Amino acid sequence: MEADPRAVVLLSGGLDSATCLALAQEQGLECHALSVDYGQRHATELQAARRVAAAAGVADHRVVSVDLTAIGGSALTDPAIAVPEAGGEGIPVTYVPARNTVFLSLALGFAESLGAHRLVVGANAVDYSGYPDCRPAFIEAFQGLARVATATGVEGAPWTVEAPLMHLSKAEIIREGRRLGVDYALTVSCYRADADGRACGRCDSCRLRADGFAAAGVPDPTRYVDPASAS
Amino acid sequence: MEADPRAVVLLSGGLDSATCLALAQEQGLECHALSVDYGQRHATELQAARRVAAAAGVADHRVVSVDLTAIGGSALTDPAIAVPEAGGEGIPVTYVPARNTVFLSLALGFAESLGAHRLVVGANAVDYSGYPDCRPAFIEAFQGLARVATATGVEGAPWTVEAPLMHLSKAEIIREGRRLGVDYALTVSCYRADADGRACGRCDSCRLRADGFAAAGVPDPTRYVDPASAS
Repeated sequence: MEADPRAVVLLSGGLDSATCLALAQEQGLECHALSVDYGQRHATELQAARRVAAAAGVADHRVVSVDLTAIGGSALTDPAIAVPEAGGEGIPVTYVPARNTVFLSLALGFAESLGAHRLVVGANAVDYSGYPDCRPAFIEAFQGLARVATATGVEGAPWTVEAPLMHLSKAEIIREGRRLGVDYALTVSCYRADADGRACGRCDSCRLRADGFAAAGVPDPTRYVDPASAS
Repeated sequence: MEADPRAVVLLSGGLDSATCLALAQEQGLECHALSVDYGQRHATELQAARRVAAAAGVADHRVVSVDLTAIGGSALTDPAIAVPEAGGEGIPVTYVPARNTVFLSLALGFAESLGAHRLVVGANAVDYSGYPDCRPAFIEAFQGLARVATATGVEGAPWTVEAPLMHLSKAEIIREGRRLGVDYALTVSCYRADADGRACGRCDSCRLRADGFAAAGVPDPTRYVDPASAS
């Protein structure tokens, strides 16, 4: 059986997934992007996802809505929980319970309805070591699940779940993206971005991103609400 | 560690999940019901789920919306695909790609936000042998995933995914439910039920249900659009 070149790529509109998409395209994959509107505070990420998908020339871009606010449990979906400005120990309050499991499940359904059997996700264990669903063991377990959860898997299709950013630092991710021509000005990473997509410069996600550009030694194209607030 | 008596139970409003809930309650579990509004044609199932949850006196009942019509691929979510009246071979067009994976993922997130680590689902391999995500191998793989996908799993919580109906025939399920006092008049199984919750009597789901009541030798309380159409 010739390898199927189609893949479903999860695209959040952030820096990581934009880079992940570029890496998948570099592999020669026909990329079908999937974004999830899950009631996140940073809804401008979805607009960013549309810009990134268009710039990359993906085969298709779908947006699935799922109301994770109904199950709560995170600063990103529950207005009663504040988004922190300083990093802490352990699992952060910005962790959304089972988020990547839900996202990959939706990607699995989309891929199955396309007849594809490859998923690509920007999970990263370096900067998100506090998130259980960003670790290699999770990706491996989901790949095993895909093989028994789907009609094509049961029939023998070689489902794969790839996480090409897994072991890269933020600076390494940015260098890869620059090499591949990713325009990071199109992306939004901030947990509290304003309606215009401008970043707060102070949340954990902004800090990680700004530190990554600094470490990579490349200019930071992020648009900040208050340029002086960027670290 | 004492066993945590809380469980998240997937509740569709159909016969199987109502029975599954009653079995979980018989075990002494504190049941938190979760229903999913996924753009299914049989939306009256959700009203049935509310009735069943109320009658059972669950601890909590949440409804999560997820728009599976955006990824298509099934007669239940795509108006362009007709619901069949006669059973066929292989995987039926009423199979929704990755549906149980998506549902269990949402249950996983809900349980994690509650601090629970037990899921109960009415998957059944006898009548749904054509659905890959209704088989024991799928349930086992999801349980393994839960243990690496969640914060509590990584910390050692003994996540379990239980499917107490897995090996029961429809007649056996109905007898169990009758023993436990489930009122099947509250439930809706039909893929094409009308707005009033009345069943078509002709789709695969209606046939399975009617045959089950007949085999169990108990009266069928289903309300049909045309009582003469029931098999």
